[in-house]
Parts: sequence; structure tokens; C-alpha cells
Amino acid sequence: MKYSRTVPLYGTLEIKCGGVSDGNPFTERTIFAEISGAENKTVRGFYDGSGVYIVRFMPQKIGEYSFRIYGNFSDKSAEGSFTVTQPEDSQHGMVGVSGKYHFAYADGTPYYSVGTTCYVWHLQPAETKAMTLRNLAECGFNKIRFCVFPKHYAYNLSEPPCYPYEGTPMDSSVLNMNNFNEYNGCPDGNSWDFTRFKPEYFRSIEDCIIKLRELHIEADIILFHPYDRWGFSMLNREQSRLYLEYVTARFSAYSNVWWSLANEYDLMPDRTADDWNYYAEIIMKNDPYGHLRSIHNCMEFFDHSAAWVTHCSIQRQDIYKTAEFTGEWRRQYGKPVVLDEIAYEGNMPYGWGNITGEEMLRRFWEAFCRGGYAGHGETYLTDPGDIWWSHSGKLHGESCKRIKFLLDIMTESPAPGLKPGGGMWDELLAVPEDDEAFSRTGYRIYYSFMRPAYRDYEINDGCEYDVEIIDTWNMTITYAGRFSGKFCVKLPSKQYIAVRMKKV
Amino acid sequence: MKYSRTVPLYGTLEIKCGGVSDGNPFTERTIFAEISGAENKTVRGFYDGSGVYIVRFMPQKIGEYSFRIYGNFSDKSAEGSFTVTQPEDSQHGMVGVSGKYHFAYADGTPYYSVGTTCYVWHLQPAETKAMTLRNLAECGFNKIRFCVFPKHYAYNLSEPPCYPYEGTPMDSSVLNMNNFNEYNGCPDGNSWDFTRFKPEYFRSIEDCIIKLRELHIEADIILFHPYDRWGFSMLNREQSRLYLEYVTARFSAYSNVWWSLANEYDLMPDRTADDWNYYAEIIMKNDPYGHLRSIHNCMEFFDHSAAWVTHCSIQRQDIYKTAEFTGEWRRQYGKPVVLDEIAYEGNMPYGWGNITGEEMLRRFWEAFCRGGYAGHGETYLTDPGDIWWSHSGKLHGESCKRIKFLLDIMTESPAPGLKPGGGMWDELLAVPEDDEAFSRTGYRIYYSFMRPAYRDYEINDGCEYDVEIIDTWNMTITYAGRFSGKFCVKLPSKQYIAVRMKKV
Repeated sequence: MKYSRTVPLYGTLEIKCGGVSDGNPFTERTIFAEISGAENKTVRGFYDGSGVYIVRFMPQKIGEYSFRIYGNFSDKSAEGSFTVTQPEDSQHGMVGVSGKYHFAYADGTPYYSVGTTCYVWHLQPAETKAMTLRNLAECGFNKIRFCVFPKHYAYNLSEPPCYPYEGTPMDSSVLNMNNFNEYNGCPDGNSWDFTRFKPEYFRSIEDCIIKLRELHIEADIILFHPYDRWGFSMLNREQSRLYLEYVTARFSAYSNVWWSLANEYDLMPDRTADDWNYYAEIIMKNDPYGHLRSIHNCMEFFDHSAAWVTHCSIQRQDIYKTAEFTGEWRRQYGKPVVLDEIAYEGNMPYGWGNITGEEMLRRFWEAFCRGGYAGHGETYLTDPGDIWWSHSGKLHGESCKRIKFLLDIMTESPAPGLKPGGGMWDELLAVPEDDEAFSRTGYRIYYSFMRPAYRDYEINDGCEYDVEIIDTWNMTITYAGRFSGKFCVKLPSKQYIAVRMKKV
Repeated sequence: MKYSRTVPLYGTLEIKCGGVSDGNPFTERTIFAEISGAENKTVRGFYDGSGVYIVRFMPQKIGEYSFRIYGNFSDKSAEGSFTVTQPEDSQHGMVGVSGKYHFAYADGTPYYSVGTTCYVWHLQPAETKAMTLRNLAECGFNKIRFCVFPKHYAYNLSEPPCYPYEGTPMDSSVLNMNNFNEYNGCPDGNSWDFTRFKPEYFRSIEDCIIKLRELHIEADIILFHPYDRWGFSMLNREQSRLYLEYVTARFSAYSNVWWSLANEYDLMPDRTADDWNYYAEIIMKNDPYGHLRSIHNCMEFFDHSAAWVTHCSIQRQDIYKTAEFTGEWRRQYGKPVVLDEIAYEGNMPYGWGNITGEEMLRRFWEAFCRGGYAGHGETYLTDPGDIWWSHSGKLHGESCKRIKFLLDIMTESPAPGLKPGGGMWDELLAVPEDDEAFSRTGYRIYYSFMRPAYRDYEINDGCEYDVEIIDTWNMTITYAGRFSGKFCVKLPSKQYIAVRMKKV
């Protein structure tokens, strides 16, 4: 077998090989590719069912490569060569940490995260997925959090169209909104072989990852979560290893993948910090590219200072103050702060899912102006079987319409991003993270829920500033004039106003 | 001289005597009344100018009394008798602490504080004062904070119609909104005799106190404050003593007086804790009735655990969380928590004065449901010389229209008031402070900015509850039904909703 082909930079080379299908190929067989040329790497492949083995590779450099396939998957071997060409579709490669607190793509383009959450969108009907992709793109979301495993919770009682493992689920026809909590974990009736994956389940996720990549949307993949009635949250150490090796082998070669070790890790009390560190180790060993890694809390944070944690993935700690703590967390962990869960816009009975669109957007701007990044979510009970937060599909809220405007403002900020710049006690002064950029640019000031009729400013650096008033809710930018020294700017006595001052 | 008259319980007996007017009667002369009969008390009087001395007495018991006037105010003496009759105009007497965390009038009627602030309303034109009184009554405010001394600050640059002392002020025609801070304290040009009061200044305050009393509104009198260009904030220890003796002698016999030692005590850095304790001592010595006493902060709290502090008078400590800390402060100080300043509704350039009416009202309900009491204020720049917060007069806001509704709900709560009752993490469950009252009544639950579409409840006490949905903003109370055990209540998916459950 001999390959010779071209792959765009940051794209995915896929090498398929026939091999052994008897016994249990998932546990008994291996396949690896040794890549050499512009880069030298060994990458693990996986069994895709029906006697087919796949190895994927994501090049980070343009140039000529050769590969050699080996492993006990077959008594045959394979080798070949490929050429890595210019990136396609304006792909910028994998997102990584830029400096200390921000993100950038592999090619250096800054990445300003505005994410959302649709926990099991990949398990929805094709037309829902298509609608979701359109909505994500239209709103400007550039990250989506979702789980590998299906979700069992209020409004999440139906069965997924397929399962990650061979086996059969408990009879879920007994479930209703009052008794679902009694079936958490791995109740009787489930029968799974945790050593045999169902490749089609993972292929369907890959299809989602690829479609997200086309839209330049990061796939923040949640590897474990506690909302479970199938037992997928209760894998033992060996089963967890097998699972993590399988998903890293399958997904790592997609540039837009982030690894979220868990949603609400602390609701999985049988896992210790040691377990999570062990999982991280497996991921790092099997992900040859070093995708971003995080772990999300319910109550207490995981120790985000752990070396393997690339950025803080945070669920808010307080009902009232959320993104306001961004600066504190930046100082505490010295890493990018991504507020992946700051409550959901909607009308859920639960307090985590019933804030207004105004408050959601306010939290985004607070995070942004404090040098962090917020995540959106929506939980309107318009159709309780079809809630964005889990099922994706339709958006009913108000905040999502204002994300793209925010992203545009973010993108106009100097790289790598903003940091809180002190300012008066009653304003959120944001300045470029990078001092040199600061000296070239200027200020952003956010007034949150406050409604000043005017503000007096004093900037005694001898420079002139073009001052704009940004109505973050109505999405207007109004030029207020060119000022220097001591000056007064009339403001609209409204909530959610920011002021941008650009050095002339 | 012989008096014989009747005074209603909690009213003010006033005895006027002629006396010496030469020298300095304020420092050289004394007048006291020894009261005996239904109560036995010695009360200090004061010099009211033009050779007139006054002693006032506020009876706390119905019955027969006699009095004897003495002091070096005159070489004549006076005595007489009076009868204290039933209270008039539904007066309930002085407000005091009830239990640990609440208030009640002298006759036992619970007092639920809903206050506002108009710092120098008593220095405004007569028609403004009349309008203010109408507005206070219409809104249902039952407390107003105001200063004895005039105020110097942004939007407060004009001169008062008269002064508390003999003397002349600096020429204030030099002042404008940009330079006023340069004249803080006691700038050149002021010339005052701090040993000679102007009685008409204090008479005008008394007129305000009396009119407030007629409307059942407490006068929370701020004795010192830092916003000054006349030097009234810089009295030395002896001058302060003289001043405090004078105001306590004048005002103590009005049932609706509260003593606030300071507005923002910590902005008067030349005063030590010892000074404030000394002032409190003088007040307690000269106020024979024990009116409520507090001291209000800008940044750091005064130590509210001081024995003389009857209740915490609090300016919020955080931009975002204000009334949410009520429970914490109750635990810390074991005293009533009155949030006298939680920002002002308006559009001031300053962050303390530009929140929405919705947020103001939310803070009131948060405080109430946590067992504390909030204070209103309004700072709309509609007419910058006429701002409720300082000048009183017109109200332009939205929260003030919803205070009376809240007060009605408060009044329907069992005495002495509410306390936070735990509840789910995402609801503010309030229960009667008194356990016995609790067993007879029920629950109030406040959802703040959250918007649940419904909530499930479980009350397994075998009792039935009449459940009402209170829209705190639109001021409606909707009966939801009679429930017991496990039940679900449909809610309106709106902010600012409370649920009241009354035991049947």
C-alpha cells in the first residue's frame, strides 16, 4: 500500500488500512504511523470497525513528509509520502495559549473566545444539527462545549440514536421528570461492553467536529460528565484509559479540538484528583499536538494550577458575581480564564438557567474587559424537548444576537487581548494586555449596569484620542469626538455602555 | 410661673421660660426640668435666643406629672403639672430595637424601615419641603436621612438660607463644578463663632421633624458629615460637645428622632474612634429617651459591635453585591441591619448614583427577605440643582413608586420581621424571625433577577398553604392555589418575583 497525496496545513491526513477483525481489535490491536520529513512524530491510530484501521495526522508545517504504518493490526505494513500545502478555507490551525492569559491560533492570529454550550447536540437529528451550525455561525460563536457521552437529566430523558459502546441500555420508558434522579449512575438493566466501542458513534462526533472546523468554531469536547443513567460516568481506571486512548486517537488530528476533561468534575465523587491527573497524562501522551486542556467545576474548582491545565474552565462561584471575579482568577492561576458557565439565559426552574439576555451579555462584557472570556448558554422552556443548552437547534434568547458585535469589538482590540487596567472604582477600565500595544492604542471602559449621564476623564499623556460610545445592547458605536487632557464625554444614561478611546 | 396642661403620650411638652440674654447664654447658662409623677426624669433645656429658654419633654407613660425648672438661666424658677393623655394621630412613640434584628415602636407596633435620603431637604424653599413631605407620604417612606449641617459637594454649591452658627461664610461665588473640591473643609473667608448657635436654623429643622412625625416618618438625623466648606465638619472636641448638647436638648423630645452620628464617618480622618465614642457618650447622657444611634461609613464600617450602636447603618461595600450581605452582617453584629445607602437610582456620573429603578427595588427585596432593611435614594440629573438625594422635591424614578407595595407586604409579615431561612441555593427563602410566628404563618421566597417558569416545592409538615405570586415590580399579587406536601407552582418567567405561602 502506497499513498501519495497533498494535505493542507492544519488539515487532517487520514490513512486507512485493512487489518484483523476477529477477537477484540479495540484492546488487542494497535496501529501507529511514524511521520518524518518537515515534522517527525509518531501518532496512534484506532480501529474503526469492519476490519478497518485508521491513522490520522495533522501537519503543523508546510513541506514534504513520509510515513510508515506499523502495529499488530495486520501482518502487512504500509508506507507512503505526502505534501503539506498552504492552509485551506482560511484555517489558522490549533488554538493555543498566547502569552499568559489569552489565546491565538497556530499561525499567530489572535483567538478571542466567545463560546456556547450544547451538551449533546451531536446526538440530535441531522436537520437540528444543520440548524445549530447555521445558528452558531450567524451568532459569531467560535467555540462550543459538548459531551462525548449522552446526557441524563431533567428534559434529557430520551435515548440517543446510538451508543458509544456495544450493549443495551436500561428501559428508559419508566423515566419521567419526577423520578429521573433515582436512575443516576448505572442502574439495573444496562448491559455494556466497555472494551468494544461503536465506531459510528464516534464517526458522528467527527462529522460534527469537521463541520465546526469549516466554520472556524472550536470543539470543546467534554470527555466525562456526571449526568448519566447508562454507566458511562462510572468507567474504571482501565476502561477510562481505553476510552481516552480511543478518543485521542480519533479526534486529535482535528485542529479545532479542545479537551475538557469534565463537565462538573466534582459531581463525580468516585474520581480523585489523582484520577484526573492520570487521565490528563494519557491525553497528553496520546495527543501529539498538545490541544488545550481544562476541567470544569460545579462547586469547587479543580486546582487550575496543575501543569496539565492550559486554561481555567470555570463555572461561576456565586449567584450574583460571576465574571467580576475574572481578574482575581487570572492572578490566582496565571492562565487564560474562560468562564464556560455563567448561568444560562432562559426560564428554567433552576437558578443556573434563568437569567435575562441583558445579564448574560453584561457578564460577557465584564469578562472581556477584565481580560477573560465568557461562555453563553440558553435554557428557554419554549419547547422543553428542544433546549439549546443540551439539544441545540433554535435560539430563543436575546444575548446571542449581540455576541457577534462583541466579537467584532474584541477582534479590533490589539493582540493578544485585554486586561483590567485599574481605573476609577466605578468603571471597568480595560487596556491591552501588552504594554507596547497599550502605548499604541488606548482604552476601553465598561459601565456595566451603571448609567452615567456623562463622565469626566483626564489623560495627561499629550496624546489625542478618538472617543466612541459603544451601546453593547443596541449594538451601536457613536463617535463622541477627539479629546486630550481633561475632557467630558456625554453618555446616554443607559445601562451596558462602553467607551472606547483610540489613540490618534 | 405655673403650667397646667395636657400632652398626648409620645407627644412633646414644651416649657418656655424667660431668662438672661447677655454674655453667651449658649455656654454660660443652663436650664433643666425635673419631671416627676408617672415618670421621673431630669431633662436639659436650651437657649432659643432673645432671652427665651426652652425645656422639652416626651412622656412615655400616661398619667399625672409635675415638673420643676432650675438652672442659672434666671434667678426665677418655675414649676407646674401636666397630664399625659392617650396618644394622638395614631402615634406609636419612639422606634427601638425589637428582639435582636428588628424594630418596633414604643407601643409595640412593629416598625419596618423603608427609608430614603435627602441630605439637606430642610434647607430648601418652603414649597419644596411641602412637596417633599407629600412625596414621602405618597411613596410610603417611613424614614428619611438628613444632615443638620449644610452640604458642599458637586451639585451642592449654593448657600443655605441660614447658618447654624453666628458668622459669615466664604464667598461662594468662586465655586464651580470643577473647583469645588479645592474648598473642602474650612477654607479662608469663613468666620464663625462656634459657641453661638443661630436658633432659627434649628427651629427650621424642628419644624421638619414635627411635620415628619405627623406623617409617621422617622427623622434619621446626621450629626456630622464631611461634605463641607464652612468648617462645620472641623469642630474641635469642646465645640462638638457644645453642639451635641444643643441638638440633643432641642431634638430629643421628638419621638421620631434617630441619631446618625455621621454620614461617611471615615471621610473625616481627623476624628478617631475615641472621638466617635465620646460623641455617643454625650448623646446618651443628654438624650433621656435613648433614641436609636448609628454611624454610617464610606468604605470601612465603624465597629458596629460598639455598645452604643443600636443598629448597623450601612453603605454598601461592593459595586455588585449589596443587600446580599445582609445575613452576614446580621451574624457579625447581632443587630438590626439598615442598608442606608445601596447606591441611588439615577444617572449621576458617579457609580454610587446611577442604578436603575429595577435594581434599587431588587436590593430592597433582597434586604427585606434577608431580615434587613434597605434605604432608597434618587439622583436623576433632570434638573441638576434639584436632586432628591440632596435637595429633595420631585421624584423622577421608578423604584419609589413600588416602596409602598413592599411596605404593605412587610406589614403583613408577622412581627418582628423576617430572617433568611435557608432554602435552595437559588432562592431566597425568608421566614418569620420568631419561630413561634413561623409555626403559625409560612414562607416568603424571592427570586431576585432569576426568572423561573415554575418551581417544585415540598413542605412535609402536614399543613396546607395558600400560595400567592407577588410581582414586586408590577405590584400584583396573584393567588396560585392551596397546596400541601409536594407541589408545583407555575411562575411568570419574569424577574423580581416573590412567592408567599401562608399557612391555612
